[in-house]
Amino acid sequence: MTDERHPFDAAVALEPIGPGRWRGRTHPAYANMVGPFGGITAAVLLQAVLQDAARQGEPVALTVNYAGPLADGGFEIAAEAVRTNRSTQHWTLRLEQDGAVAATASAVLATRRETWSAVEAGFPTAPPAAALERAPTAGRPPWTRAYDMRFVKGAPRLAASPPPDADSLSLMWVRDEPPRALDFAALTALADSFFPRVFVRRASWVPIGTVSFSVYFHADSATLRANGAAPLLAQARAHQFRNGYFDQAGELWSERGELLAVTHQIVYFKE
Amino acid sequence: MTDERHPFDAAVALEPIGPGRWRGRTHPAYANMVGPFGGITAAVLLQAVLQDAARQGEPVALTVNYAGPLADGGFEIAAEAVRTNRSTQHWTLRLEQDGAVAATASAVLATRRETWSAVEAGFPTAPPAAALERAPTAGRPPWTRAYDMRFVKGAPRLAASPPPDADSLSLMWVRDEPPRALDFAALTALADSFFPRVFVRRASWVPIGTVSFSVYFHADSATLRANGAAPLLAQARAHQFRNGYFDQAGELWSERGELLAVTHQIVYFKE
Repeated sequence: MTDERHPFDAAVALEPIGPGRWRGRTHPAYANMVGPFGGITAAVLLQAVLQDAARQGEPVALTVNYAGPLADGGFEIAAEAVRTNRSTQHWTLRLEQDGAVAATASAVLATRRETWSAVEAGFPTAPPAAALERAPTAGRPPWTRAYDMRFVKGAPRLAASPPPDADSLSLMWVRDEPPRALDFAALTALADSFFPRVFVRRASWVPIGTVSFSVYFHADSATLRANGAAPLLAQARAHQFRNGYFDQAGELWSERGELLAVTHQIVYFKE
Repeated sequence: MTDERHPFDAAVALEPIGPGRWRGRTHPAYANMVGPFGGITAAVLLQAVLQDAARQGEPVALTVNYAGPLADGGFEIAAEAVRTNRSTQHWTLRLEQDGAVAATASAVLATRRETWSAVEAGFPTAPPAAALERAPTAGRPPWTRAYDMRFVKGAPRLAASPPPDADSLSLMWVRDEPPRALDFAALTALADSFFPRVFVRRASWVPIGTVSFSVYFHADSATLRANGAAPLLAQARAHQFRNGYFDQAGELWSERGELLAVTHQIVYFKE
């Protein structure tokens, strides 16, 4: 039997096993060096909220804390709506495997109204995606092949020889591969698709692991639908690397210059 | 009987009421327009982790989601260490009042080792704190008097008349008032001491409420101790205001140019 779903849809599929409880399974297309790509874990956690019949509103904030390794195979998610207000809803989540907590998460949903709006961040200057070459994925973990990345600046250097850049800024066009219409779950995974800043800054590979990851959603579902499968312009930088941890701040823009989401994470690195 | 503690220490004081359960109380010195200043709520949540006998390591990440109003008076915190690894520990927390969840939180602690380190963000240019005047607090909520703020740029304008600035960037020196030696709880509250970006950008007051707030700690306790009661140089900006929510990204620097923490939040605003 062939699975005709897009690999992303297969990877975030959840089976209900009780009120607020879901069973999922890691997917080989999103495998990382050890366990799954963190972005797909964040996406499946958000998916547990989005699929819940009690869900009210659209995502505004998501935080995922990666507490321990997740092995290839099945896992369970518990999702609880701890408070529902008139226009906001607060969720807490836990992802377990074999009785151990592998991740915790929280999500805030909101029903939005049209208000005065303004964007202050600048839409980055970049040549069109079609004018750039797709970044190579050979020798890289499987999840990198689930994305089409085209770097304007700050590709990971890993085995490169030139002296370290003064900064770790990366700017890339990125979309699901094969192409897939954008939605909140896919945008969440894309927000974690930046290579670790330490791979950009330094010429050597070091073990890393995100410990906490957040996405603030500025776009509503209509804006995401309008994007379709077009690539996003994604930018990330670090403020500091210090004693085993670095932070990363990122922005995800539509081709038309809409700031869809901002994202932050703090990442362990070993030296 | 006089309480001789610093008001901050009184405001974050917790009484143990069971394993992982604490009772606290709002403090008038940190009152906001409605309920307490969000920064003090974040600080008391972190305090529940820091005081726990099971605590291992120092804070790396804290996220607080403000789920509902907190009235002046008592509240309870439940703090659970959901996973303890060799060098990291993951906590989830819940703050309740009269049986309703007012806030949820998560914290990641870590035991750090010395590694290659680098700061990429630029230390902002500013005149020394002593060369600037303290921002007025008259007519502002009580918590503003618990801080000494000196604006280099981007003071809240509220009733001001000039046309809106092109950006909402604020840069200020800020410290506890009266002065108090810096620690993780105080740094957490300071990370929320920025006025809402919408007050800087627009000339009119609008109701606001932070829904999700995160701090990533780059400093360890030795660095915080070395800071003593010196003011911090704090910078915040918004990426976007859109349909009822804006985000804020901030940095907190020591006088000596150390990036102590970065912070993010997403805030509801009414128009």
